[in-house]
Amino acid sequence: MTTLYGYWRSSAAYRLRIALNMKGVAYDQITVNLKEGEQNGEAWRAIQPQGLVPVLKHEGETFLQSPAILEWIDETWPDPALLPSDPSARCTVRGWASIIGCDIHPVQNLRILKAVAAEGGTGFEGMKAWAQRWIQSGLESLEVLVAAHDRTTPFLHGDQPGMTEIYLVPQMYNARRWGADLSNCPTLVAADEAARALPAFAAAAPEAQPDAEADV
Amino acid sequence: MTTLYGYWRSSAAYRLRIALNMKGVAYDQITVNLKEGEQNGEAWRAIQPQGLVPVLKHEGETFLQSPAILEWIDETWPDPALLPSDPSARCTVRGWASIIGCDIHPVQNLRILKAVAAEGGTGFEGMKAWAQRWIQSGLESLEVLVAAHDRTTPFLHGDQPGMTEIYLVPQMYNARRWGADLSNCPTLVAADEAARALPAFAAAAPEAQPDAEADV
Repeated sequence: MTTLYGYWRSSAAYRLRIALNMKGVAYDQITVNLKEGEQNGEAWRAIQPQGLVPVLKHEGETFLQSPAILEWIDETWPDPALLPSDPSARCTVRGWASIIGCDIHPVQNLRILKAVAAEGGTGFEGMKAWAQRWIQSGLESLEVLVAAHDRTTPFLHGDQPGMTEIYLVPQMYNARRWGADLSNCPTLVAADEAARALPAFAAAAPEAQPDAEADV
Repeated sequence: MTTLYGYWRSSAAYRLRIALNMKGVAYDQITVNLKEGEQNGEAWRAIQPQGLVPVLKHEGETFLQSPAILEWIDETWPDPALLPSDPSARCTVRGWASIIGCDIHPVQNLRILKAVAAEGGTGFEGMKAWAQRWIQSGLESLEVLVAAHDRTTPFLHGDQPGMTEIYLVPQMYNARRWGADLSNCPTLVAADEAARALPAFAAAAPEAQPDAEADV
């Protein structure tokens, strides 16, 4: 039994849905309602002291932090591989994923946006400008790196989506939501579109989740 | 030939110095002077488009993003292992490292601190409060997780330092620098102290680097 504790709009939960779908792993979903602040309640913090999602439970074990869980998923269900077999190529792909996972997403995550708006007293417009700034600068750096790499398909490394696309697609969802300018990132836009057309990615989309709500 | 492009006070470069020292790998160091803004120059951005350090060059290959490079180092020089051999334990340790690598360090990195101070107009005191806030809350969450885990030594997993300590020690250096309150993190404080007593960690300390300067 595999259970994903997440939220339809959580980028990090979105990553895990994609990976589990790619591997063909069946899983249950339990919502932690971020909109209602359930993540800050004692019950959830007893499971995840940071008050973050996602958490994956599998056969009695509890795992947290999506970068660690993605590696675990890839080790537990090796096919299809999320990382190249060559160590140097694996480092390249992990590095691309890490640009999103460390330097873009955490800096524009909702808890940070709210804190920045509070510090600056800039409200929603301040949040939006902050999100756009880090999303755009981060994705533009990633674009330079991936565009310099040989490709034969729209996917960023090899002829199938892998770890980079698992990080990219949720980040691009976020980028669109915040109105980031992606005109300098044609390679990333093409990879995102090609990946989202695949069933594993489509089924993982926020709007396809049981806890999805109408946009508010 | 292995060359580390870094800066004495960069936490992410500090991680790589520890790991290379633990593995007994000889490496040259080249400074990218963050204080003088060298990371934002065209020459450096042609190597690392984000304008960040570290970068590792090894036998003609160029790797970026310290989380990816740490995995590569562990795959390239397996002894001593930075991660446990059991997949579940590996996920736990990677998750602990990821709390620091994704949710603490990037949010209080200097470029973010400067941006927050500019947004809020709060200057140095605003930067300090922001850094303390995310360091303390993040480390306190990590403390809860590691304290719940059985240990027989001060180290956090197993009887030797590993991936968690590689992330922890530079983060604790940062925590002290910003005056974060670590009184709720006795397990982390003990692990940090035990690790810093070892030669691989001591030789990697910022003050022990050739480009170290007197505190300013």
